[in-house]
Amino acid sequence: MKFVVDQQVEDIEMPENLKLNTFLQEFHSDCPHPECSFGFYGFAFGQSPFPVPKLIQDALIKNADKGEYAAVPGIPELRSAISKYNKHYFGMDVAPERIYVGPGTKELIFNLLEILHGTVILPTPAWLGYLPQIRFLKKNYHMLPTRANKKISPNDLRKLALRLQDRQKILILNNPNNPTGLLYDELELEEIADVCKEQNITVISDEIYALTTYNFSKFVSMGKIYPEGTFVTNGLSKSHAAGGYRLGYVIFPQHAIDLRRQFKKILATEYTAVSTPIQHAAVAGFEISSEIDEYFVVTRNIHQIMGEYTYHRLIAIDGVKATRPDATFYLLADFNSFTIDLQKMNIDTSQKLSESLILHPYHTAIVGGDSLVLERTDFSARIAYVDYDGATVYRNYLKNKPVSSSEKTEFVKNNAPKIVAGLDMIADFFVNIKKDNLLKSESVKSSMVSPN
Amino acid sequence: MKFVVDQQVEDIEMPENLKLNTFLQEFHSDCPHPECSFGFYGFAFGQSPFPVPKLIQDALIKNADKGEYAAVPGIPELRSAISKYNKHYFGMDVAPERIYVGPGTKELIFNLLEILHGTVILPTPAWLGYLPQIRFLKKNYHMLPTRANKKISPNDLRKLALRLQDRQKILILNNPNNPTGLLYDELELEEIADVCKEQNITVISDEIYALTTYNFSKFVSMGKIYPEGTFVTNGLSKSHAAGGYRLGYVIFPQHAIDLRRQFKKILATEYTAVSTPIQHAAVAGFEISSEIDEYFVVTRNIHQIMGEYTYHRLIAIDGVKATRPDATFYLLADFNSFTIDLQKMNIDTSQKLSESLILHPYHTAIVGGDSLVLERTDFSARIAYVDYDGATVYRNYLKNKPVSSSEKTEFVKNNAPKIVAGLDMIADFFVNIKKDNLLKSESVKSSMVSPN
Repeated sequence: MKFVVDQQVEDIEMPENLKLNTFLQEFHSDCPHPECSFGFYGFAFGQSPFPVPKLIQDALIKNADKGEYAAVPGIPELRSAISKYNKHYFGMDVAPERIYVGPGTKELIFNLLEILHGTVILPTPAWLGYLPQIRFLKKNYHMLPTRANKKISPNDLRKLALRLQDRQKILILNNPNNPTGLLYDELELEEIADVCKEQNITVISDEIYALTTYNFSKFVSMGKIYPEGTFVTNGLSKSHAAGGYRLGYVIFPQHAIDLRRQFKKILATEYTAVSTPIQHAAVAGFEISSEIDEYFVVTRNIHQIMGEYTYHRLIAIDGVKATRPDATFYLLADFNSFTIDLQKMNIDTSQKLSESLILHPYHTAIVGGDSLVLERTDFSARIAYVDYDGATVYRNYLKNKPVSSSEKTEFVKNNAPKIVAGLDMIADFFVNIKKDNLLKSESVKSSMVSPN
Repeated sequence: MKFVVDQQVEDIEMPENLKLNTFLQEFHSDCPHPECSFGFYGFAFGQSPFPVPKLIQDALIKNADKGEYAAVPGIPELRSAISKYNKHYFGMDVAPERIYVGPGTKELIFNLLEILHGTVILPTPAWLGYLPQIRFLKKNYHMLPTRANKKISPNDLRKLALRLQDRQKILILNNPNNPTGLLYDELELEEIADVCKEQNITVISDEIYALTTYNFSKFVSMGKIYPEGTFVTNGLSKSHAAGGYRLGYVIFPQHAIDLRRQFKKILATEYTAVSTPIQHAAVAGFEISSEIDEYFVVTRNIHQIMGEYTYHRLIAIDGVKATRPDATFYLLADFNSFTIDLQKMNIDTSQKLSESLILHPYHTAIVGGDSLVLERTDFSARIAYVDYDGATVYRNYLKNKPVSSSEKTEFVKNNAPKIVAGLDMIADFFVNIKKDNLLKSESVKSSMVSPN
């Protein structure tokens, strides 16, 4: 039997992280070199390496008997805990009724895009998850390339908004940002919010990395600055290292009461509610406790140490630029100064760069530029610095906190040897490309001057 | 700020079970009668009352530490367990690659309707979840009213298919059926499958109640009869009383390899994967064990005892008809012989019948006909017989299994007093309606013969 698939399904691509996963699996089983048996240096996957906080695990254990369906927007205890969490960490007064829980912020953002009419404005580079959703939903959208500092320019946003016909425009703001690791500070957010108010732009502010902000006092939620027009999404996946639990939440803008009713309908139509035991477990993750607080502090300190090492190692490679992360466990590396050298090696797209780096002898997995909604020929890449054993590193950090910068370098070398070796591989790759091209051109030259 | 909502969102209605829930909550807090404090007789909610099998709870407890993202189609152990489960219980050879796991069969059916082009054929009465999905996705659809026996007529299906222009047609088959509790036997399925083959109809066979079939040897999966054109969905929600866990699966038709690739893309785009600890817990639910097997036998025996009592009590009310359930924990009651009496009381829709029954002194919650995709004036209703304490009743059943029909009646009276009292309330309601109308017409008559 032949099946007919809706056209928009055919049109979207597999999210790149999944394509890469497939590629890595195939590569791994095919590689004939004995050195391949270790796997690869993993800079591609955006997953926190730490164990789920014990409080959350214990709460899940205690609530394994909860087999009944939960209320569509989330169980009252959870919405109440999230409300207090927002007050405590973000200084926001959010009534529990404004909070809806879903099976991951990915699905909640999808649901928002389903119900909100209008044109989507997607700043680039961007997390690899937004664009397939926008395309699948056949929404109008426009890219908003960020400036050299990798941040949205309020003026560019205004200019774009003025060009758009739709009476409703939706800006997807991802702060702290994946892939750059950068944080928008309060002033920057205010400038963006001013344009949004002026141009009637709705904001979906994906703040899933909020609590990974290294200097946490600098984090400000867009929901605080522009409460009447912002949907804030957050969840357990990054700050609580529980991406696999699948629990996120969205805070609705003030006064959007009818919209909440519409949203509830859609959740009920699509998935009823989030897993009840998981919701009970999440309560422990959002309740204020010294245990969770310590967890946030320790994990973000470790992310910062790994991030600083990664940043400095990359920019030490001649010709490489990178963002210096304020949060998350990523940075954006820029290899565009090698464009001509790469092209000479027939590496003319970022996809080919990723493929070349994964092959022997480099074994290094990165997420290339086209997966970040950049041009296919843009040799930028997201570098995730999480390839270490989180449980062990967490313990080692507590035993002996590195303070000086040399202690921190030692900490990385002792605790994350694969990050160290993988970055060396990236360095070797680009050094070798230069060298090979030099040899080639010399042999061309020598063949030109040769008498035969 | 005003938000613009997409039109198809405005157009769909809240699934009726949720509307009823809201109504019940309001009714409950508003009722001034002291007798209301007990709540109400619950024939509306379709939730198994039994505890989640201990094996599953234990597996969830053991896997609370699984914070990492799972593979999109499901973890390999789970797909393999589901494959063996299908072999053991349904005699089906299904390779694990044909099985995709999702956060409930509701979402999987939604995802199938998202990717499959074509016109949907919806037999009625139907579960209240399908129609909002079909409407939200703006799919073409046609109702297929069942015949007097409340089953699809293959001839009617053929006639409808011949009228439809779409090259792909999708029949939603729900077997065993919610709301009727009826089972299609092998011969009936073969006749339907013959029309499907002839007319090129794809089937989504929602078999979530399969393992509640009272005489289980009679259950046959459509996936066995029409493997090349059937998507079978099933999960933990009904047979394992774990609706709140949110885990379902779909078996793809044989040879639909490209379609699986497309489906995976959509799952990755919308929700990544099902909660990892929940997936590990589900493995224990699908693995073959004497414990789970006993659980299926005990729970379906209890459902049957409650169902038989409910059926006999309802048809003992003069003028009431009902389906006699073969499976599930529902039956369809037919109160249409009271249409004229109801209309005289200004009850002219099934919605108003539900509202009248919930009010004092009846306090009885049912799901009315328009929630089952019947005409608003069709006084049919789904009666769920699950309003009892499942854990206690399970233990009582094991202690002293009722065998004779009088023992079974005693069992219901001792273990499910709210079902007994609620059915009496339904009987009183209809007896009183007849009586009140009689009194009214007599007073009209007497006023007509009165000299003044």
